[in-house]
Amino acid sequence: MTGFILAGLQFEPALGDPVANIETSSRLIREAAAAAARLVVLPEAASAGYVFTDRADARRNAEPVPDGPVCSAWAALAAELDLWIVAGITELAGEKVFNSAVLIGPDGHVGTFRKAHLWNFEKELYDRQEDGFPVFETPLGNIGIGICYDAWFPETFRSAALGGADLLVLPSNWVPVPGQPEDLPAMANLMCMTGAHSNQFFVAGVSRIGAERGQPFLGRSLIVGPGGWPLAGPASNDREEIVLAEVDLIGSRAERLGNPFNQPLGDRRTDVYQTGDFTADLSGATA
Amino acid sequence: MTGFILAGLQFEPALGDPVANIETSSRLIREAAAAAARLVVLPEAASAGYVFTDRADARRNAEPVPDGPVCSAWAALAAELDLWIVAGITELAGEKVFNSAVLIGPDGHVGTFRKAHLWNFEKELYDRQEDGFPVFETPLGNIGIGICYDAWFPETFRSAALGGADLLVLPSNWVPVPGQPEDLPAMANLMCMTGAHSNQFFVAGVSRIGAERGQPFLGRSLIVGPGGWPLAGPASNDREEIVLAEVDLIGSRAERLGNPFNQPLGDRRTDVYQTGDFTADLSGATA
Repeated sequence: MTGFILAGLQFEPALGDPVANIETSSRLIREAAAAAARLVVLPEAASAGYVFTDRADARRNAEPVPDGPVCSAWAALAAELDLWIVAGITELAGEKVFNSAVLIGPDGHVGTFRKAHLWNFEKELYDRQEDGFPVFETPLGNIGIGICYDAWFPETFRSAALGGADLLVLPSNWVPVPGQPEDLPAMANLMCMTGAHSNQFFVAGVSRIGAERGQPFLGRSLIVGPGGWPLAGPASNDREEIVLAEVDLIGSRAERLGNPFNQPLGDRRTDVYQTGDFTADLSGATA
Repeated sequence: MTGFILAGLQFEPALGDPVANIETSSRLIREAAAAAARLVVLPEAASAGYVFTDRADARRNAEPVPDGPVCSAWAALAAELDLWIVAGITELAGEKVFNSAVLIGPDGHVGTFRKAHLWNFEKELYDRQEDGFPVFETPLGNIGIGICYDAWFPETFRSAALGGADLLVLPSNWVPVPGQPEDLPAMANLMCMTGAHSNQFFVAGVSRIGAERGQPFLGRSLIVGPGGWPLAGPASNDREEIVLAEVDLIGSRAERLGNPFNQPLGDRRTDVYQTGDFTADLSGATA
């Protein structure tokens, strides 16, 4: 049996308070473990909060991976509870600062993903990654990672899928999107759903709640199956919650990838796609 | 003023009966024109229906573009009513048969798009296009085209956007997707919404109703704004309907493409994307 319980931990990290974040995240990881979770996903920037005022502030709140205090606490917990953790962390790497997510297993740190698409003021806070979208092999299946705004780019899902990912996890700090209709899921949820469906893999989008320095966040964490429909969630906008779903990343491969007639990965037309930078100059055009 | 009324005509083409399809489509095009529409979009395969039994059957139901009877009737109507039409057509091109869509303006045929991603049994009926995703300049704005299953590939939206499209129109014969929850839009609708949002352009997905040879279709036609939310529709599953929305393809360019901080087209990381064929071999992998 290769199926297991995947958990998304939706909570409110405390800005500038790693000790509090170790405490809150540990409590929720233990709760997920008690529900038999083998992989738990935490939000973006879960180590020290998110809305830093400038690069120096981000740097002050960053820690080295894997030896910093929050990462070490998560590693100890993963070993004790025999599970995997993906969690957003503000990473100090020499002179550089990254908006990162770590993958930690029972035997320690497995790998780190650094956010590829920096959103809004993040461009002023963080360094630019050059690593693309690594896919990490684990006994649970192949895990790709994106962070928040990365999900706005279908290339994130596609790059992970082409790298062999069975699951894309998205630690996130989702924010409200203008024009949100009351009767539709959040745009972030829709990105997860279409990203899963187009790539025939699992997606776990896990966001935080609360607000920092006037920036409100949107929970709405969810786990999506390879058909594109939610297996768990979306959670509430504003309450601490654990979303849980049984998934089988490895056991579902034949069914997910085996249909010869109708296969969103195999049917791609890479010979005719445009994949370069956006260079269309529409500024001068008028009717 | 560059804004105009865009109309999607959701109806039931008749299999193997071009005369009936000229009659029905003309009635609806006139109705849209009476509502001041300048661009009307018809479903996929609106000239002669869709579920052909084999390649010979598809060929018998195909017509040359732009001189075939249905295309000529649409061109006459576009001239008379001073509007543009995008409509699905089964195209005969020498020995080849394509699942195509024509763009016709008041002055005649502007261009043809041939479906890039052939769905299911279509692979046995149609020839493979080599043209990619042309974008057609019109006084209304730049128009890209995809057909039905093309929308399952985010590369379709992206290729059109990178080609300078302000609007992607998707003549479609959508079918039910397994697992559809009652409280969520159809997956096709979600594809249109995230495709619009990720590319900051307009999307019009126009589908047919009814059934052919046991294959049921799903209406749910809609027009989506560049924010990703519906401007009109989704329409019903099964009723003839016209969806209408006022759009401004050219006048919205500065607002759509001008935000320097948060730009899903400009923020892309083409230096790190995977864009090749799917070659991951997951078949032998087990836990």
